[in-house]
Amino acid sequence: MPADSTPILIHGGTVLVQSQSSPGPCELHAGWDVLVTGGRSAYVGPRDTSRIPEGCEIVDASETIVMPGFVNAHTHVAMSLFRGYGQDLRLREWLETRIWPAEARMTREDVYWGAMLACAEMIRAGVTTFCDMYFFMDAVAEAASETGLRAALSQGMMGMTAEDRRRTWRASTDLFDAWHGAADGRIRVMLGPHAPYTCPPAFLEEVGRESARIGAPVHIHLAETRKEVEDCLGMYGKSPVQIAVDSGLAGVRLLAVHCVHVTEDDITLLTSSRAAVVHCPASNMNLACGIAPVSRMVSRGVTVGLGTDGAASGSTHDMFASMRIGTLAQKHREMDPTVVPADNALWMATRGGALSMGLEDVGTIAVGMRADLICVDTLGSHFQPAHDIPACLVHCAAPGDVKMVIVDGRILKRGDELLSLDEEDVLRKTRQIAAHLIPR
Amino acid sequence: MPADSTPILIHGGTVLVQSQSSPGPCELHAGWDVLVTGGRSAYVGPRDTSRIPEGCEIVDASETIVMPGFVNAHTHVAMSLFRGYGQDLRLREWLETRIWPAEARMTREDVYWGAMLACAEMIRAGVTTFCDMYFFMDAVAEAASETGLRAALSQGMMGMTAEDRRRTWRASTDLFDAWHGAADGRIRVMLGPHAPYTCPPAFLEEVGRESARIGAPVHIHLAETRKEVEDCLGMYGKSPVQIAVDSGLAGVRLLAVHCVHVTEDDITLLTSSRAAVVHCPASNMNLACGIAPVSRMVSRGVTVGLGTDGAASGSTHDMFASMRIGTLAQKHREMDPTVVPADNALWMATRGGALSMGLEDVGTIAVGMRADLICVDTLGSHFQPAHDIPACLVHCAAPGDVKMVIVDGRILKRGDELLSLDEEDVLRKTRQIAAHLIPR
Repeated sequence: MPADSTPILIHGGTVLVQSQSSPGPCELHAGWDVLVTGGRSAYVGPRDTSRIPEGCEIVDASETIVMPGFVNAHTHVAMSLFRGYGQDLRLREWLETRIWPAEARMTREDVYWGAMLACAEMIRAGVTTFCDMYFFMDAVAEAASETGLRAALSQGMMGMTAEDRRRTWRASTDLFDAWHGAADGRIRVMLGPHAPYTCPPAFLEEVGRESARIGAPVHIHLAETRKEVEDCLGMYGKSPVQIAVDSGLAGVRLLAVHCVHVTEDDITLLTSSRAAVVHCPASNMNLACGIAPVSRMVSRGVTVGLGTDGAASGSTHDMFASMRIGTLAQKHREMDPTVVPADNALWMATRGGALSMGLEDVGTIAVGMRADLICVDTLGSHFQPAHDIPACLVHCAAPGDVKMVIVDGRILKRGDELLSLDEEDVLRKTRQIAAHLIPR
Repeated sequence: MPADSTPILIHGGTVLVQSQSSPGPCELHAGWDVLVTGGRSAYVGPRDTSRIPEGCEIVDASETIVMPGFVNAHTHVAMSLFRGYGQDLRLREWLETRIWPAEARMTREDVYWGAMLACAEMIRAGVTTFCDMYFFMDAVAEAASETGLRAALSQGMMGMTAEDRRRTWRASTDLFDAWHGAADGRIRVMLGPHAPYTCPPAFLEEVGRESARIGAPVHIHLAETRKEVEDCLGMYGKSPVQIAVDSGLAGVRLLAVHCVHVTEDDITLLTSSRAAVVHCPASNMNLACGIAPVSRMVSRGVTVGLGTDGAASGSTHDMFASMRIGTLAQKHREMDPTVVPADNALWMATRGGALSMGLEDVGTIAVGMRADLICVDTLGSHFQPAHDIPACLVHCAAPGDVKMVIVDGRILKRGDELLSLDEEDVLRKTRQIAAHLIPR
């Protein structure tokens, strides 16, 4: 379906307007309209009947908050097939006895259906863009293309053996050639060197050169565990952040996932190289990796996005939960209830994530921006009386409150109905595949 | 409606069976039936048609988990009227500039409607029992009685002035006389000295004597902040836990809420006095009070329940979120992903809470236990494929998945419909009251 189909008027909601550049207080405008044409917001303001095009579809947004769709800035969507598998285990045991053996059995078709399951979940939860790293990524691109989501995709690249390097370079190049700019521009391709502990510096330098050559941002796991930092210091005399920046990964845009264990010097380097950090609080706490110094990084000017991580460690793709767990974790970490106020959590979960992956026209509501919008119902007994809308969006709202999801001007969810995929079919297929991958 | 109305057969669900005495692995029985008669479970096991009484209502529980309803072991339900008010402020500023001035304006009718709002929210979220402390508690009792929930209620007692003592003793005694054992026994009354910093030891000793005389358990806030502990040590040379136990509060049953800042000696005292602790992770983290050593207390044999706290600090009455945030917080606190596994979180959110308030026949599914049961849908794309049911209940499920709520053998929610209250009326009334209490 082309992005420039029927214009849509989202009428009479409370429209949430945020800064385009950095977190800060948001504005709420009751009774505003948002007119969507050609996949972008064409008007945002008080009702103005002179601006309504003929044949326009009118969406009643009264009693809802009209806000940017969530940007899930780090996940491995196909890992939805492993949901609940290996919970409450130590990282090494979880990987070695559960995740890696199951992944070794996965086919391209499995990845496609795992991605479809996550797409269904994400559309229900108001996620409009996701940033993914895995293998068989063309299957993930296909799922995003079909379901109407926006995605920034990277083949996970491994650099420990010549065979790994050859195979993952090839897959990454094929992905870029086949999918970069596809689906009306909704799909972008990034380079995805997995992590410093699987990609030695010489390999990362190759990736940095290729990033500059093709203008693709880089997506990498960085400083997730204390052990990773110690190993990097021991092997290379540098922290993971130093290795990444020194290898030239930040030339276009570096999206550094986790950054749980970073020093003040690392933060300085992130700031000066204009790298972005993606924070995955539920996954980090679940694996007992620690809590990243997000509040500190934000105050030093680092762009921070929020992610769920894959469902194997992050459990769900619920960005409401990511915001709540993320802000609670920061208040605890700093022993200060004022840090990461609700406005900032909302910004990180939308605009911050979009900027992290270099999507300059995504993640806020403003004229000319891509029309990736959701309507969040405010009438639930868990939400009322909402004295402070941003606070209630962060701490009280849930995926079930999302009543409308629009990506690139196309409606993907209306009320409880998913319009771009057959959820029952997806559930049936993924249950079969999951039972085959992980026999009970 | 009497508890012993029509028998109900909950048919063909996956029934979750837990230990009655302490947390541990739970059992899951696919395709089992639960027969409810006279407000209690009369049969729990594989289908047995010989046991189905005539005129029995049959509930199809296929594709759901049949589990005990949640026990929200600490809240202030009327504070739902303040939801979102004063988020991201420091404790003292929050209390002095927001909460206390608004509370000073509250009438008995306001408390009633605030309680009704929370009851609607709790029934939707599968909470079947709540433990409350506030003022105008007869209005809370009325709300519990009308909506069909089970409740353990205490008047918050203040002991700093003679007038406070006189007034709150009177209200507490009136509540006990009027409501203890009411609503077919669903309502119990406890004694609720607010905290050591508002109730001096001599007053707590009076409460301890009265607790023993009438056989009522005691509900108190204890060791919530570091400052409280320092103040107690400075003024009395004892920790809050020591003060409570030495005052005789643990004679019947002591329900000690928070216990964020407790020493090994405090834990020994909690164990030896058979006191119970109620953990409110979202509230504690939101106010940056700290994370209680729950994993340590559980391993030392302390009975621990889970609570949301009031919505002013805890945001919602969602016990799924309490379980998830609670277990993530413990993994972080101990830097060990294996602590508080999902089974234990489920136990604390159900049986642990019931035992905390002395409800011996509540909180597990077994023959003879009160029939407080919920059916949790497993077919959501955020829940599938559920390789590990307890893990998915704790980390993935949400209030919207609760498809049936039964308390004392009475159905309070069927599908999305609340049967014991008019939710629209409650929302209308509470929006008016909230706007009056907190003018914008």
